[in-house]
Amino acid sequence: MRLIDKGDLDALTLGATLLGNGGGGDPYQARLMALQAIDDFGPIKVVDLDELPDDALIVTVAVLGAPTVIIEKIPSGEQYVNAVKALGAYLGKEIAAILPVEVGGMNTLVPLMVAAELGVPCVDADGMRRAFPQIEMTVFTLAGLSASPVSLADEHGNQVIAATVSNSVAERLIRTASMNLGLANAFASYPMTVAEAKGAAIQGSIAYCNEVGDLLHAVQQGTGTWDEFFLFTGGRTLFEGKIVDLDRRTTSGFARGTVVIEAFADQSNTMRIEIQNELLLAIEDGITVLTPPDLICMVDHETAEPITTEQLSYGQRVRVLGLPCAPEWHREGMLDVVGPSAFGYDVDYVPFKGATK
Amino acid sequence: MRLIDKGDLDALTLGATLLGNGGGGDPYQARLMALQAIDDFGPIKVVDLDELPDDALIVTVAVLGAPTVIIEKIPSGEQYVNAVKALGAYLGKEIAAILPVEVGGMNTLVPLMVAAELGVPCVDADGMRRAFPQIEMTVFTLAGLSASPVSLADEHGNQVIAATVSNSVAERLIRTASMNLGLANAFASYPMTVAEAKGAAIQGSIAYCNEVGDLLHAVQQGTGTWDEFFLFTGGRTLFEGKIVDLDRRTTSGFARGTVVIEAFADQSNTMRIEIQNELLLAIEDGITVLTPPDLICMVDHETAEPITTEQLSYGQRVRVLGLPCAPEWHREGMLDVVGPSAFGYDVDYVPFKGATK
Repeated sequence: MRLIDKGDLDALTLGATLLGNGGGGDPYQARLMALQAIDDFGPIKVVDLDELPDDALIVTVAVLGAPTVIIEKIPSGEQYVNAVKALGAYLGKEIAAILPVEVGGMNTLVPLMVAAELGVPCVDADGMRRAFPQIEMTVFTLAGLSASPVSLADEHGNQVIAATVSNSVAERLIRTASMNLGLANAFASYPMTVAEAKGAAIQGSIAYCNEVGDLLHAVQQGTGTWDEFFLFTGGRTLFEGKIVDLDRRTTSGFARGTVVIEAFADQSNTMRIEIQNELLLAIEDGITVLTPPDLICMVDHETAEPITTEQLSYGQRVRVLGLPCAPEWHREGMLDVVGPSAFGYDVDYVPFKGATK
Repeated sequence: MRLIDKGDLDALTLGATLLGNGGGGDPYQARLMALQAIDDFGPIKVVDLDELPDDALIVTVAVLGAPTVIIEKIPSGEQYVNAVKALGAYLGKEIAAILPVEVGGMNTLVPLMVAAELGVPCVDADGMRRAFPQIEMTVFTLAGLSASPVSLADEHGNQVIAATVSNSVAERLIRTASMNLGLANAFASYPMTVAEAKGAAIQGSIAYCNEVGDLLHAVQQGTGTWDEFFLFTGGRTLFEGKIVDLDRRTTSGFARGTVVIEAFADQSNTMRIEIQNELLLAIEDGITVLTPPDLICMVDHETAEPITTEQLSYGQRVRVLGLPCAPEWHREGMLDVVGPSAFGYDVDYVPFKGATK
């Protein structure tokens, strides 16, 4: 068991913003909520799955909605606790610990905050080790675990519980329910035993996120290098250049768009990145170079500060990073759940290529 | 207690079709399900509220979705039983009896079928004594009772439970959930005690529906007259004529439209009826003559067969009936819940005028 205190939140927040791949919601608010929770309940307990009994029940909790709404609507911690309690009551079981569904964006800090408020530990594991836009896009789905039953809560006391026969039906139901409940909701899902989590979850995700944050912070401060960052993450710089074109539109509940970057070194060399909440597909001079589930992260070229898709702007000088996804993704069925076609892109999956430049 | 056997279903079905006010779904399928339930479980028990203990829990069950879908998708009785059981499990209580939410259209027979399958009685009462398009449009809402928690089930085993702070939020959530679950769903709602129902429900609705069906059948057979029908219902013939214009469109999940009828006696005398699933507003020569919650029913002029809005066609010769709503509607707040403005019509409520022609 480790304890997360206020001082630990900076690195976690920075790592979470980078692993949000441009989406995942702005962790700033969630950081404030986690700070408040530590003030109220003391440092947050983080445990490995091995430290819990195999038959203990754990559930994920996350914010669900539109980042644009969430940013304007200060959430109350109460709805998150309510969502988890509603799911526990529906199942008629006690919840032993909280499991992050993703460690990208806000949803790294929300589970920590909820764990503190409920007085249970948070598990150092998750279902993505990045951010993805949809509920079913988890290694849990890959392992055949059901997201269902799921619960959704708003700040007024409205609650929805759905028990579904597939994780994609759960996604559709909860997405439209959230549209009716203001698009800034608490969402609890994937109730599972510790034994089930051991066979499915990506373990050590919070520690990974923390290390990514620490290494990125060192780059920002000049006390560390990109080489050290890539040594740990196995990633590489995909591209360095200036944003020369940008197209964004909100359709079917997602922020979609395209960003085009022109290389500093050679203006005829461009990279196009396709966006669906997250940065998903990188195409360099017409050749697809990075596909989901591997990660595309964008940082400011000078400050190494992660840039979310809402912050993209013409003329920005950026560094595009490619990171390999967690090895736990490489199981049978990966491409059906999170490959390019799962996002509607008609391109083949490109296996991640490590450092070459 | 009364028993409803197969022979009783004809009058009930005819009455329910008329009280559907042109909407409420085609009772034909529901009649088949009720016949099957009687075959399997014997005659259906119908009881008055007085015959049940005051603290017993009763819930409504209904089909919810689009009549156009429901007509093409033969529903299984199982989803209805599942919706009721899910609600009982969520509440952690045993359900003592089924309460119809409306006695118009399919939803007169669905509760009888479910009661038979669950081996509990069906209460001779309801929340509308007609059909209305939305969940919150009940005398229960008027009495301050909550529709929540509610449950929705489909034929695949998907279930949604919503606990909401208002009946209109329940309506929005369940309407979109049903759009995701195929628009032919089982819906359980308004869990209440018998004591609460006594103070809120319209009692004797099934008997009323049965009597309406009997009297209409007598008119059809020539063994009874419209005068006898109106003596019982307090209604009158609003208009007799030929359909000369018809406009129908499906928007925001409802079938909306307008039908114009020209009087047999005087071609300059026309009646316009506005439709939102049900026939809702009657305007004669520019003057509003009937508004919700009072009833507009349309029957074929020759056969006295009720005409649903889907069956309306140019040139049809029709009789338009006006019936007063159940007296239980006349409470504080009626117009907010089911008056013309609740349907978006910018006209004043017109108190029902009894027989004048």
